[in-house]
Amino acid sequence: MNVADSPPFQNAIDRLLRSASGRLLNRELSRRWPETGEQLDTMARHALLPAGKLLRPIMALQAAEIVGGSAADIVTAALGVEYLHAATLVHDDVIDGDALRRGRPTVAAAFGVPSAIVSGDSLIFSAFEALVDEPWASTPARVIAVVGALAEAGRDLCRGQTLEAQLVGDIEAGARWYLEMIRLKTGALFRAACYIGATLGGADTDTASVLARYGEHVGIAFQIRDDLLCYVATPESTGKPASSDLSNGRPTLPLILAYQAAAVPERRELLAVLGRRAGELDGDLDRVRDLVTARGAVAAAHGRMTEYVERALAELAVFAPSPGRTVLEGIARWTTGGPGAGVPGADVPQGDAR
Amino acid sequence: MNVADSPPFQNAIDRLLRSASGRLLNRELSRRWPETGEQLDTMARHALLPAGKLLRPIMALQAAEIVGGSAADIVTAALGVEYLHAATLVHDDVIDGDALRRGRPTVAAAFGVPSAIVSGDSLIFSAFEALVDEPWASTPARVIAVVGALAEAGRDLCRGQTLEAQLVGDIEAGARWYLEMIRLKTGALFRAACYIGATLGGADTDTASVLARYGEHVGIAFQIRDDLLCYVATPESTGKPASSDLSNGRPTLPLILAYQAAAVPERRELLAVLGRRAGELDGDLDRVRDLVTARGAVAAAHGRMTEYVERALAELAVFAPSPGRTVLEGIARWTTGGPGAGVPGADVPQGDAR
Repeated sequence: MNVADSPPFQNAIDRLLRSASGRLLNRELSRRWPETGEQLDTMARHALLPAGKLLRPIMALQAAEIVGGSAADIVTAALGVEYLHAATLVHDDVIDGDALRRGRPTVAAAFGVPSAIVSGDSLIFSAFEALVDEPWASTPARVIAVVGALAEAGRDLCRGQTLEAQLVGDIEAGARWYLEMIRLKTGALFRAACYIGATLGGADTDTASVLARYGEHVGIAFQIRDDLLCYVATPESTGKPASSDLSNGRPTLPLILAYQAAAVPERRELLAVLGRRAGELDGDLDRVRDLVTARGAVAAAHGRMTEYVERALAELAVFAPSPGRTVLEGIARWTTGGPGAGVPGADVPQGDAR
Repeated sequence: MNVADSPPFQNAIDRLLRSASGRLLNRELSRRWPETGEQLDTMARHALLPAGKLLRPIMALQAAEIVGGSAADIVTAALGVEYLHAATLVHDDVIDGDALRRGRPTVAAAFGVPSAIVSGDSLIFSAFEALVDEPWASTPARVIAVVGALAEAGRDLCRGQTLEAQLVGDIEAGARWYLEMIRLKTGALFRAACYIGATLGGADTDTASVLARYGEHVGIAFQIRDDLLCYVATPESTGKPASSDLSNGRPTLPLILAYQAAAVPERRELLAVLGRRAGELDGDLDRVRDLVTARGAVAAAHGRMTEYVERALAELAVFAPSPGRTVLEGIARWTTGGPGAGVPGADVPQGDAR
């Protein structure tokens, strides 16, 4: 569950999924993952279909088009990015012990933890197979470059997860490392998606780097917004349990900013809550939420998020107006509830922001 | 723990590790994985160093040399094969709940299961990074081919593990699927190691396929021998708990062949033992061992293993004599305790073989 599932956002996602790119990806996913009766394929199907938002592969296709390439030529590679994303979700659910994802049993819940570990591994291998599938989407040198980019992004994801685990319960370290952590954990695969699309679409190195930066900024903004959600929306409207980050002891940006703005007694309170476990949080949650809002931390975190949306949009300014650019701008705005997207949190008070 | 750790075999492995290839690989492993203080690197170091037998990367280097390539040029890619092997061990230990490997705590035991899952994933990504590291070991088209080969081998490993889990407790299914299962689970990465070495070493497609088949046959023989160990050697001499496969309900080749040769009451006995759990097996183990030997199944499984060694050696016959060919022949013989290797089990009675 994340920000993208909040109702007002869903309309924008639905439009994307109904676009030519969305339909192409959905059609190819179903065609490439038929029911074979083999358990490994069944698990992959379970993880991949029905498809999620397909944000990353859609961004890859648009990045190819914006540089003059063809979405159809790179669809296999774009799906590879989705396989890697799915692999990380399958393993994340094992690590977090989660039984549900998007309202369905996780692979771990449906097939058991050992099988889920193997299924995630297999999806990683499928991701690399997709990049080198023949006919190659571009010149051999470009194919090699995108293999390297996907492998690097994969290692960044792992570094981000490791860093996140190390920050549990530690607001001070969180303050130092939060942005780097989400850049690795979430920004890296958005970055790779755009880089891969652009490179296979024929971009020169500089242009591919511009799109990679765009992707990374969008990913960072996306994660800040995800971390904001439990402070700006009700669980009913988002489906996200309001206490999940808190009960996992995660120092997310709103908490970090509230801590930095708080007086000493309030700081002690926040530290105490972060050290507690799920089930012990009932009374504390409203108090933390009030504190975070009162210290202006919701608005401040929203401001940080908007900075990254603006940076993403600024990268796109080098491209002439085109349908691809419009879609990528839209994703930056929609994903993060930016101006005009009308998602909860876009209208938080700004006066107290720092 | 596996066959390669039995004492007489260790001498051959020690010689390999002291060879130019072995020293090159060990030196590069230590150089590439320094202590950085980052937890992900620390876990990778734990999984990779001190190095194991390095059989697969040594085979990759020899495959390159036998086709006229240079071991030094492909050492990075050969290490990539080792990273993938290490990744599978890290995840296997999570899946099996094992706390020790080669006498040291597993990554899961030392760093926890969540970190071990992430560490295994990261090693997979490092494997692919190693293949595409610059300067490329060969032409771009060959680099792409080996990425595809490693990804395919990775998926085969996953299919083999899934199949193995499905065969638990089922001798009849085991009889049908055992060879395919070990071809996927163990043969695939030996195959990929040789294919990658040969391809980057400059082999044409046919020659690379010859070496790939050699590798697959060695891997199959290696696994049969591993499965034989608990019937032909004492735990003291091998370090392998005699009941591990039995208590996991795994229908390995000796058990399958004994079952096929047994009378109905004995079949019932074997089925009953395979259905029991660890801790309930004490009295049964000697009985099963006696039965497997009495039905000629040890000798028969040894015969099957020798067939695969012979097939591996036959593939090498197309190459002119060379130091590389001698090493690869030696690995086939040594790995599997073939003629002259003097490892336990090479001298089991042959008269009752079928």
